[in-house]
Amino acid sequence: MPGELVKALRAVAGSPNVSTALAVREQHGRDESMHRCSPPDAVVWPQDVEQVSKLAGICYSHGVPIIPFSTGTGLEGGVTAVRGGVCFNLTRMDRITALSTEDFTVAVEPGVTRKALNSYLRDTGLWFPVDPGADASLCGMAATSASGTNAVRYGTMRHNVLNLQVVLADGRVLHTAGRGRHFRKSAAGYNLTGLFVGSEGTLGLITQATLRLHGSPEAIVAAVCAFPSVHAAVGCTVQVLQAGIPVARIEFLDDVMMAACNRFSGLSYAVSPTLFLEFHGSPGSVEEQVRQAGEIVQLNGGSDFAWAWELEARNKLWAARHNAWYAALALRPGSKARPVCSPFKQLVCVSSGLIVGHVGDGNFHCILVFDPADLDEIQRVKEFATRLARQALALDGTCTGEHGIGLGKRHLLCEEIGELGLTIMRQIKAILDPKNLMNPGKVL
Amino acid sequence: MPGELVKALRAVAGSPNVSTALAVREQHGRDESMHRCSPPDAVVWPQDVEQVSKLAGICYSHGVPIIPFSTGTGLEGGVTAVRGGVCFNLTRMDRITALSTEDFTVAVEPGVTRKALNSYLRDTGLWFPVDPGADASLCGMAATSASGTNAVRYGTMRHNVLNLQVVLADGRVLHTAGRGRHFRKSAAGYNLTGLFVGSEGTLGLITQATLRLHGSPEAIVAAVCAFPSVHAAVGCTVQVLQAGIPVARIEFLDDVMMAACNRFSGLSYAVSPTLFLEFHGSPGSVEEQVRQAGEIVQLNGGSDFAWAWELEARNKLWAARHNAWYAALALRPGSKARPVCSPFKQLVCVSSGLIVGHVGDGNFHCILVFDPADLDEIQRVKEFATRLARQALALDGTCTGEHGIGLGKRHLLCEEIGELGLTIMRQIKAILDPKNLMNPGKVL
Ligand SMILES: Cc1cc2nc3c(=O)[nH]c(=O)nc-3n(C[C@H](O)[C@H](O)[C@H](O)COP(=O)(O)OP(=O)(O)OC[C@H]3O[C@@H](n4cnc5c(N)ncnc54)[C@H](O)[C@@H]3O)c2cc1C
Ligand SMILES: Cc1cc2nc3c(=O)[nH]c(=O)nc-3n(C[C@H](O)[C@H](O)[C@H](O)COP(=O)(O)OP(=O)(O)OC[C@H]3O[C@@H](n4cnc5c(N)ncnc54)[C@H](O)[C@@H]3O)c2cc1C
Repeated sequence: MPGELVKALRAVAGSPNVSTALAVREQHGRDESMHRCSPPDAVVWPQDVEQVSKLAGICYSHGVPIIPFSTGTGLEGGVTAVRGGVCFNLTRMDRITALSTEDFTVAVEPGVTRKALNSYLRDTGLWFPVDPGADASLCGMAATSASGTNAVRYGTMRHNVLNLQVVLADGRVLHTAGRGRHFRKSAAGYNLTGLFVGSEGTLGLITQATLRLHGSPEAIVAAVCAFPSVHAAVGCTVQVLQAGIPVARIEFLDDVMMAACNRFSGLSYAVSPTLFLEFHGSPGSVEEQVRQAGEIVQLNGGSDFAWAWELEARNKLWAARHNAWYAALALRPGSKARPVCSPFKQLVCVSSGLIVGHVGDGNFHCILVFDPADLDEIQRVKEFATRLARQALALDGTCTGEHGIGLGKRHLLCEEIGELGLTIMRQIKAILDPKNLMNPGKVL
Repeated sequence: MPGELVKALRAVAGSPNVSTALAVREQHGRDESMHRCSPPDAVVWPQDVEQVSKLAGICYSHGVPIIPFSTGTGLEGGVTAVRGGVCFNLTRMDRITALSTEDFTVAVEPGVTRKALNSYLRDTGLWFPVDPGADASLCGMAATSASGTNAVRYGTMRHNVLNLQVVLADGRVLHTAGRGRHFRKSAAGYNLTGLFVGSEGTLGLITQATLRLHGSPEAIVAAVCAFPSVHAAVGCTVQVLQAGIPVARIEFLDDVMMAACNRFSGLSYAVSPTLFLEFHGSPGSVEEQVRQAGEIVQLNGGSDFAWAWELEARNKLWAARHNAWYAALALRPGSKARPVCSPFKQLVCVSSGLIVGHVGDGNFHCILVFDPADLDEIQRVKEFATRLARQALALDGTCTGEHGIGLGKRHLLCEEIGELGLTIMRQIKAILDPKNLMNPGKVL
């Protein structure tokens, strides 16, 4: 990285906000997945959109890659700097603005995480439901089109982002739905907001996201029940949805995963295929949902529900599900893991593994735990993951229901979308990022 | 239109499926709104996607505009052939395929309307909720990003289209989410499906849409109540939503509109600002929603609810709302109307008019009735509509919450989106339609 470039970056962001130190760079090139760390050449911490714009302009004129980084919880190697360049750490931009309790909207910068927003909203009667488990940045979640346990009822980021402020590679600032606009729906021109949701940093830097909020449910109850087989648990899920029960979460863990969770979190759940459910609504409606769901569970041979009404009890109950990733890793200390995300109907074909699924929203993950030092094992894990993804595609599914394409699934994108779709994506990328500087080597 | 071109079209579609007769052309250049009729040079009725592809290829090589037409219920002049060309009437492609009751998905061709799909689904326990009032084609609804009375609970077309088969101007066939894919969510590459939803025929011909279905509610109840003021009705709506009551529809009609509806449909509702509501769910949950909403209505000075539980009674109750457009037209026989769509919070600033609003989903329409022969009045209506839209924009709203940009709102798009957004939209259009043959003169 030429000293002149570093100097130019420092002139904009201030010296302490630009680092070329190896430890910092390595941290920014790593993610939770199996991808090798390719650290960037420098890391910058801009304070506001004007700085982001100027810093991007400098990178652009030097022809240097730009890698957006929000909280680094992504699982597809999205923040590794495969061609070097400057990592934009956006966590210091953490303002929450433009809350409208009447329009149910709010605007957040990339340093604002899901939990931070929800504690900010605590007294308003509103909340933001998309929940990928990790306490990720909301702008990062927009960048990966994140989803999570609540998607069955509240949708994914695709449904809950209303507007984005984006700095393009050359520093120009775009408002995808027009500056300051925060309407619930619009039919004005092409859906540019939707284009940037899920673009994984390859089209521009998201510096602000305007989100749609929801009324907080008056009552919440969580429940767990065990099933004699995967088939029974899946059948139960389909029937609950077909019955139109407005379940908020419905998550599946297989027996191997349950054993790992019991061990990791010191719990004593049955080691069987298990559903975790959550119901939201008024007290009466929640009770009725529970009754209806309970009947369907019984019909499918499920156990009685274990209940949790209070926040603390619910958190304890959900701990098993939320810690699944870490429970899987803990099976083999020092290991890493590779998530494979597959459509629902594939679930019944996969023999048991470390499986955790957003079954209510039609997909599940198979977590493959491996030793990062064992090159042979890594190879086998990669092959298995690809086989599983191809099986998903053969069932008309997707190779990535969430998490994105990143580095790890580029070879599958064309198989999923087709040649023409991929060509169009490349052409769109070329419009917005003609020098291919935005997070190069990812997605396309 | 050169005879050679007509011959080429006939060779593909068969003679009776290509017409240059004036009456047919005029019908295809007209819509329900105030836009002058510019008929196309010819109309074709392709029978399948292969024909659409070949016919588009012929138009492409002749440099002739292509105007997609599904059911012609659009309100922004989208099907008028401002530069002549060939109108593709897609109504004869009317197959429903790939129903999956397990994945809650189905695929429809452009000849399938909302009502046709729902009667096809009748015995499955599933339904498709997006309802723009008119019995429009589902592909046409995808093309305009339609919404309607149910959007507050089930979302708009943006949320319910999973995949599109699109014939591009040059005849190439794109599957926006990959051929045959029908997963509920994906994070694979850029959201091309979202780009085509709402593109109003300017990017390609939608020849099939894969839709997300919903479980039919077990119980439905509709209710009407009158308010002392617009302010009270709006306040009530906001509070119902803030309370997290999962209302399925909540629609507003002002006093002038209610008078028109009473007259048109022979009803005797109070001539006051009025809310129409509908609640979906299990019987118990519906009862509780009604009770909760009833309390909020009372707090805002609303009248007692008038109820309807059975289908027939509900249809009668909703007739007033659904016929609002025609009731407005009937105020002045021979008139036409121009809808203006504005954000919620503007409602309280607008003095009374012919107002009907999807208030639950944050927008409302002001229907302007005028004499199509009175050029002076048309001018005044246009000016008023533009003033109202500008007021909406000044409140951070949109100039078109639904219906699209079409012909009528092109001058407002840049004010809403900004110069850079518009430039990017134009560049995207140029990728997909380099000769500007797809529905030229619309949107951009
Ligand atoms: C335990 C665990 C469980 C998870 N469960 C789920 C789940 O259920 N569902 C799910 O969807 N995900 C899940 N994830 C993945 C992860 O939380 C999401 O991908 C998250 O949305 C990433 O946000 P981030 O801010 O950490 O992004 P980062 O990791 O910082 O970046 C991810 C990608 O987005 C780009 N990016 C980040 N910020 C921006 C920005 N401001 N502008 C432009 N591009 C940007 C980056 O360049 C990179 O390509 C899980 C992760 C963990 C660790
Ligand atoms: C009484 C009444 C009430 C209405 N209420 C609402 C409402 O509440 N909400 C709402 O959103 N709309 C409403 N509308 C508008 C209308 O119903 C919608 O715009 C509808 O989605 C248009 O569908 P269509 O098939 O009739 O499209 P058309 O009128 O045939 O075409 C509309 C536009 O879409 C393009 N198009 C149509 N089909 C295709 C295709 N297959 N491929 C590519 N482009 C295509 C056309 O070129 C044109 O630009 C209402 C209309 C009426 C008459």
